[in-house]
Amino acid sequence: MITSSANQQMKRVMQLNRKAKTRYEQRVFVVEGIKMCMEAPKEDIVAMYVSESFLLEEQNCQRLQRYSYEIVADHVFQIISDTKTPQGILCLVKMPEYTMENLWENFSNSHLLILESIQDPGNLGTIIRTGEGAGITGIIMNKTTVDIFHPKTIRATMGSLYRVPFYITADLPETIEYLKEKGVSMYAAHLKGTISYEQPNYRKATGFLIGNEGNGLSPEISKLADTWIKIPMEGRVESLNAAVATALLMYEVNRQRRIF
Amino acid sequence: MITSSANQQMKRVMQLNRKAKTRYEQRVFVVEGIKMCMEAPKEDIVAMYVSESFLLEEQNCQRLQRYSYEIVADHVFQIISDTKTPQGILCLVKMPEYTMENLWENFSNSHLLILESIQDPGNLGTIIRTGEGAGITGIIMNKTTVDIFHPKTIRATMGSLYRVPFYITADLPETIEYLKEKGVSMYAAHLKGTISYEQPNYRKATGFLIGNEGNGLSPEISKLADTWIKIPMEGRVESLNAAVATALLMYEVNRQRRIF
Repeated sequence: MITSSANQQMKRVMQLNRKAKTRYEQRVFVVEGIKMCMEAPKEDIVAMYVSESFLLEEQNCQRLQRYSYEIVADHVFQIISDTKTPQGILCLVKMPEYTMENLWENFSNSHLLILESIQDPGNLGTIIRTGEGAGITGIIMNKTTVDIFHPKTIRATMGSLYRVPFYITADLPETIEYLKEKGVSMYAAHLKGTISYEQPNYRKATGFLIGNEGNGLSPEISKLADTWIKIPMEGRVESLNAAVATALLMYEVNRQRRIF
Repeated sequence: MITSSANQQMKRVMQLNRKAKTRYEQRVFVVEGIKMCMEAPKEDIVAMYVSESFLLEEQNCQRLQRYSYEIVADHVFQIISDTKTPQGILCLVKMPEYTMENLWENFSNSHLLILESIQDPGNLGTIIRTGEGAGITGIIMNKTTVDIFHPKTIRATMGSLYRVPFYITADLPETIEYLKEKGVSMYAAHLKGTISYEQPNYRKATGFLIGNEGNGLSPEISKLADTWIKIPMEGRVESLNAAVATALLMYEVNRQRRIF
């Protein structure tokens, strides 16, 4: 049993939780909680740590029968965990690796989200979770979007992280141009949009350009869009939460593709 | 200038931030940040506190010209603030008081949200913000819903708190029955719903029953609904974030009422 947070493995977990740089160097990230650990592709689990008291529950022991794991003293688990009330189980998981091609394999059905500099990890996680529900085919992010492997992002995805293909691009404008050439219609969610978001025909290959929470899309990215759309807002509301706005767009695609 | 957090006024602010009970005893709540303070109905502002460094900015001084306020030392402001990086301005504001009647004045157009035991203050705030945008006519909550005047709820509303009528009911089933008698069709967002959420006609008086993040609606409340609806989900998604699910429903009403 690991009884000290000075243990090398524990230090590694803490570093992986704290630093995106470490995660990308090791190509590994940390997931916490029973749901996230059980849904991780088994072959991608690098290590599993469980707390003493986690193992006291019969049901938990059964769940872990076909896993190998290390036991960690409760007070140490509390230290390495990213949450205030840890469930007592965490895993190190290999990063999934997607290529550009993975994201547009089913080309004519593309339903892509392109995120520019989303900052809030909870928003990003919620967007991924909702995206899987709405049936998106992939997410593209620029390098200044918050890390998809941030502990709070992972938590908010509720497992969708394992299943939604994503691609982090060093050159967002170039990636958008490439997609347009391949026939993806690009819609910018923009406060100055003139067309309400339910008006376009989304049954063709569709991409949404989504901007930063505070500032929206940059002019450089906005101008690459084929169409600027808006979400009508009543009252004195100036904008919607980024995860909410993105959900409305993605589910409008879902609605059109289901119904028509 | 107030230079100690032991000052009676500062103690009051901290208590109001921490305790719902104190807020309801005094019928006052705390709002922070320039946007929330400037949007507060001026006649409802009970006190305003600004930090020394806030006042150093010319623009801020101009904004405060027609307000009376107390100056607070920066280190004290840091203590009384609910945020890690306070903007340096906060107000105590009188609670708005709505009656049941305020929420269904425009009866045939009712677009009501009825929340059962929503727990996350950020979710509640986002729901209120999105609700104003979607044009809801009011929100009804039971007593076990997180407090609408929780600092995190207030922040997430982005000002909509001042404008969306709400009512906290001690008897949720009775309130729902009353609304049904008045002609409001009640839709329960339910994982076991059989009708997809875009199918009903929401141009008539509409109410949505929204359950707790973890457990959904209780059986008692679910059975009061006229119709159980669901949001279709692809992949392996089991549920959507409560604020996202609610947004999809409210904006479907908005879409139908705009378009048809």
